[in-house]
Amino acid sequence: MRYAVLGTGVVGRTLGTKLVELGHEVTLGSRSADNPAALEWVRAAGGGAAAGTFAEAAAAGEVVVNAVGGRVALAALEAAGARHLDGKVLIDVSNPLAFEDGLVRLSPVESDSVGEQIQRTFPAARVVKTLNTVNCDVMVQPSLVPGEHQLFVCGEDAGAKEQVTGLLGEFGWPAGRVVDLGGITASRAVEMYLPLWLTLMGKVGHAHFNLELRRGR
Amino acid sequence: MRYAVLGTGVVGRTLGTKLVELGHEVTLGSRSADNPAALEWVRAAGGGAAAGTFAEAAAAGEVVVNAVGGRVALAALEAAGARHLDGKVLIDVSNPLAFEDGLVRLSPVESDSVGEQIQRTFPAARVVKTLNTVNCDVMVQPSLVPGEHQLFVCGEDAGAKEQVTGLLGEFGWPAGRVVDLGGITASRAVEMYLPLWLTLMGKVGHAHFNLELRRGR
Repeated sequence: MRYAVLGTGVVGRTLGTKLVELGHEVTLGSRSADNPAALEWVRAAGGGAAAGTFAEAAAAGEVVVNAVGGRVALAALEAAGARHLDGKVLIDVSNPLAFEDGLVRLSPVESDSVGEQIQRTFPAARVVKTLNTVNCDVMVQPSLVPGEHQLFVCGEDAGAKEQVTGLLGEFGWPAGRVVDLGGITASRAVEMYLPLWLTLMGKVGHAHFNLELRRGR
Repeated sequence: MRYAVLGTGVVGRTLGTKLVELGHEVTLGSRSADNPAALEWVRAAGGGAAAGTFAEAAAAGEVVVNAVGGRVALAALEAAGARHLDGKVLIDVSNPLAFEDGLVRLSPVESDSVGEQIQRTFPAARVVKTLNTVNCDVMVQPSLVPGEHQLFVCGEDAGAKEQVTGLLGEFGWPAGRVVDLGGITASRAVEMYLPLWLTLMGKVGHAHFNLELRRGR
């Protein structure tokens, strides 16, 4: 499969590397075609890896992964171009966080979410929100954390969620540990979990943790 | 110990009943002294159970539990009176949620929380936020859910958190499963978890569930 990964930060590069290792073709997208981080990543990732602008990457990908920060996601996707997103599965792994005076702040929050913003702005894209509740190392190597801990998916398109669940399986997440939370509005719930995730990271002392849903009855 | 439990809803009554069963004296507080739910609870709970106004309950309690909804917590505590709260451990178990058009909404959210509002408004109270991340049946009977799932506490007063951790032990939560998230600002994190909790409840089909923190390394 051909993937576009938008974003050259550690999340985008980690996802891109894993996708290449799995045998996929990956174009890492960034604001400019000569982004040093992207070119360095192409050298390191080897065959199957390419870099380009957001638009070049999205044009090349059959599936598009939004791995830029949640607060700049719409700008990156506008640069990618609706015509390169329409009809495609668009995986949003972002969180709209920033720090102010040492405290995490989210925007949008509560009455909206990045997942919803993206789906609203690109109605013909098949948006699936997932992976934003774990560190990027855990995203592509869930065995870093013991136990039957879970990931969440949400979105309006059942077929897109099924396809993404398959990709998560390639990453090492059994389908039984991928919890479908319903429509894209559930993005609010998983994005609003971030302050607790960050607080737990401070408590645990590192980012290799996750939560396991325990059910009574 | 003498407890005031403010709120005659299912959360307040469940906590009150458990405290009476544990041998404590409990005054259930409400807006009026002749609240039918409170009087019925006193009849059912038996010796050690009493009812009164918010002020009467808070005056009688050595420890005060806020079990009214998060959006009316300050009003209930104002009615209880600062002079009946000052110097006391004040356990806040509330969430500031309401439903609009079928969607959960939180207020305050993100840049503030009920836990912080209470501590700010009653600076001499020793506020501890806890228990708001599980259903009230699970609060007082954690064995309803299998596994080493956790509760959180946060607040500014280490001694108060220690005392509350002891009470949670009486409820059945071993100290090792009570995670201290730090100061009262962490109330934001645990209150913002609620949309995910509600979404998971819809998925699980009931409220007897919780999350277990899984750590790598």
